Amino acid sequence: MVNDMHHNLPDGLKLRNSKPTDHAGIISVLKDWWGGRDLTWMLPKLFLNHFTNTSFVIEKDGELIAFLIGFLSPARLAEGYIHFAGVHPDYRGVGLGKFLYQRFFDICKENQRDTNRACTSPVNRGSIEFHKKIGFDITRGNSEIDGLPVTLDYNKPGDPKVLFEIRI
Amino acid sequence: MVNDMHHNLPDGLKLRNSKPTDHAGIISVLKDWWGGRDLTWMLPKLFLNHFTNTSFVIEKDGELIAFLIGFLSPARLAEGYIHFAGVHPDYRGVGLGKFLYQRFFDICKENQRDTNRACTSPVNRGSIEFHKKIGFDITRGNSEIDGLPVTLDYNKPGDPKVLFEIRI
Repeated sequence: MVNDMHHNLPDGLKLRNSKPTDHAGIISVLKDWWGGRDLTWMLPKLFLNHFTNTSFVIEKDGELIAFLIGFLSPARLAEGYIHFAGVHPDYRGVGLGKFLYQRFFDICKENQRDTNRACTSPVNRGSIEFHKKIGFDITRGNSEIDGLPVTLDYNKPGDPKVLFEIRI
Repeated sequence: MVNDMHHNLPDGLKLRNSKPTDHAGIISVLKDWWGGRDLTWMLPKLFLNHFTNTSFVIEKDGELIAFLIGFLSPARLAEGYIHFAGVHPDYRGVGLGKFLYQRFFDICKENQRDTNRACTSPVNRGSIEFHKKIGFDITRGNSEIDGLPVTLDYNKPGDPKVLFEIRI
């Protein structure tokens, strides 16, 4: 099913660019979608205001099913960065995450961006597996947690992150 | 003194673009510079990785004295956005904040960006006064706190913000 979805979403699901007014709706699902973790701090309103051209939501009858917030790096001209992406728990395993990533990769390619980066917490095994499956490599860190290369103190002290990179 | 500083910093102070390796140093001063408030969540590493071309630090003998993190909005082509800026408490009142804002405005003008936005919390009276003094207007919100127009639930529920706008 994943392979079939590169250019088509299942019936009833619709893709569109995100809008500033999507912010409250995305914030409201984070805890449910991330198994109780509160990641609200990761998505201040500015991400919805200023990166609409490279960010997307998938909806079904107006209900949020998945989102991806990314941007083309203004400082690293060969790079795109995927900041935050999530899929409704009831819609996992059918390729929606991959669909959103491919859509973002397409924009990167149109803009001569051949490298893409993302990062996640080492506790988020689902995210790590997802990125590996898509084809991301884990970049060398400065430490290791449960056999995974991590970069310590990434966003703040005591915040190890697994960093991903892919050539598209 | 403020007027004299549009193009010159006091002796010993140096301006440069921010670098990814500035992240830990900036994070480490936030609480001191913001009167005990912990605003670490506002500055994940990505802001230092990807907006170096529009972000700056001022240093004295290698010590961080001030910083500004901003970017040119990819979605709003006439806008620049100042995400986060701070000045060492011992160096306030001499125009360093204004100097950094002017530097950012210059970049905006070079890129045909005539509108600049920023936001702050209504508790941060110093920031509000600063933005008014620079020439920012407070944009109409959906509520009022202590006589100030605010937008409620801005970054998350229970998070009112004062929004600023300036034509440069």
